[in-house]
Amino acid sequence: MKFSEELIDTAEYQRLRARYEPLAQSVRALIDACIRTEADQDEVDRARRTIDEVTALLTERQIDGTHGVRFMPDGQGVTWGNPVIGVRNPIAPPVEIHREPGGRVWTEFVLGAPYEGPPGHVHGGMSALILDHLLGEAASDGLTKPNFTGTISCRYLRGTPLGALRAEAFIERVDGVKTYARGHIADADGPTVQAEGVFITPAWAREEN
Amino acid sequence: MKFSEELIDTAEYQRLRARYEPLAQSVRALIDACIRTEADQDEVDRARRTIDEVTALLTERQIDGTHGVRFMPDGQGVTWGNPVIGVRNPIAPPVEIHREPGGRVWTEFVLGAPYEGPPGHVHGGMSALILDHLLGEAASDGLTKPNFTGTISCRYLRGTPLGALRAEAFIERVDGVKTYARGHIADADGPTVQAEGVFITPAWAREEN
Repeated sequence: MKFSEELIDTAEYQRLRARYEPLAQSVRALIDACIRTEADQDEVDRARRTIDEVTALLTERQIDGTHGVRFMPDGQGVTWGNPVIGVRNPIAPPVEIHREPGGRVWTEFVLGAPYEGPPGHVHGGMSALILDHLLGEAASDGLTKPNFTGTISCRYLRGTPLGALRAEAFIERVDGVKTYARGHIADADGPTVQAEGVFITPAWAREEN
Repeated sequence: MKFSEELIDTAEYQRLRARYEPLAQSVRALIDACIRTEADQDEVDRARRTIDEVTALLTERQIDGTHGVRFMPDGQGVTWGNPVIGVRNPIAPPVEIHREPGGRVWTEFVLGAPYEGPPGHVHGGMSALILDHLLGEAASDGLTKPNFTGTISCRYLRGTPLGALRAEAFIERVDGVKTYARGHIADADGPTVQAEGVFITPAWAREEN
C-alpha cells in the first residue's frame, strides 16, 4: 500500500472540518441513544424511516470509496474517517492527540456505552485499538513518517472503567527500520493497560544510503 | 468487576432484537454516509437537525447507564452494546460468531469506510479489537465462562484490505486459571494478522477444590 501524495490546503481543511465535524457529533449522540433507548415499536419505526431519509440525502453526493490519508502543507496527516481520531467518523470517540516536544503523545477522552465490554468497563479490544493508534502516532511523529505496526502487545493490569481516561505513548528506541514504542491507558487511579509495539518503516519510504 | 446474575428470557431477547437490530443497521448506513458525504452546508444543517430530533425521540425513555452483560437460560451471554458483536451497537460491524464443536470459533464479516486506517486498509487497532474479542470468545466458551484478557499480542504480516474478511480463534492450552488462545484475520489470500492471548479466570469465578 502507498500513501497518496495528494495535499489538502489548510484553509480547505478548516472549512470542511467546520461543516462536517458537527454532523459526526450528532451521529455520536444518536449511536448512544440507539444502544440505550427503550422506545416502543412505533417510535423505533419512525426513527428508522427518518434516519434512512437523512442517509439518502447525504449519499446523493458522496466520494467513491474511502478518504484514505491526505497531507497538509506542514506534513500533518488528515484522516477524516479514522476510527480513533477521525473527526468525521462517528465511531471514533474521537481521540485528540497532543504532542510534547520530546516526542511523547497524550490524549484525554471519555468512553461511554458504545465502547463497553465487561459491565461498566471498556472492551479490552477498544483499549488495544486506541493504544495501537497512539503508539503508531508516537512512532511516526504524528503521521508525518510512514510506519506500520509490526507487532503490538497489550498487558491488562485491571479493568478499565468507562468514563474519563488518559492515554500516552512515547518512542523507546529506534533500531534501523524498527521503531519501538510504549504507552498506557490510565484512569484516575493509574495505568490499567500497558502496551508495547514495534513499528516498521515500509521499504518504499526508507531513505537510500 | 462482577457480572450480573440477571437473566433474560429467550423469547424476550428475540422480541427486543427484532425491534432494535434494524435501528442499529440504519444507523450503520448513516455512519458510512456521514464519513463519505459531499453534501453542502444547508443539507448538512438539515441532516443534523433531523438527527438531533430522532435522538431526542429515542432518549425520552432509555436505560440508565449501560446494558452490561446478561445471560439467557442456556448460559449464552447477551451483550447488546458490545463494540464487536453488539447487534444494538452501530459501532459494531457487527461480527457474528460461529462455534465449532471442538471449541474453534470463526466469523466472516465486511469492513468498510468507518474502519479505515492506512488508505484502503483496515486500521491495525481494529484488527486487534476484533481478535481480542474472538480469542476471548474462544477462551471463555462463548462468554459462558468469565475470562478476562491478561495479555494479547498481534503480529501484522501485511496490510488487511477493507472488504470481506474472515477471522478465527481457538484454545491452544489451559494451565490452571490461564487459558492460552490463538487466532488470525485473513483475506482471500490468507492470514494478514496473527494473535495470541492469555486469558485469566477471575478469582470470584474460580472453582473451589
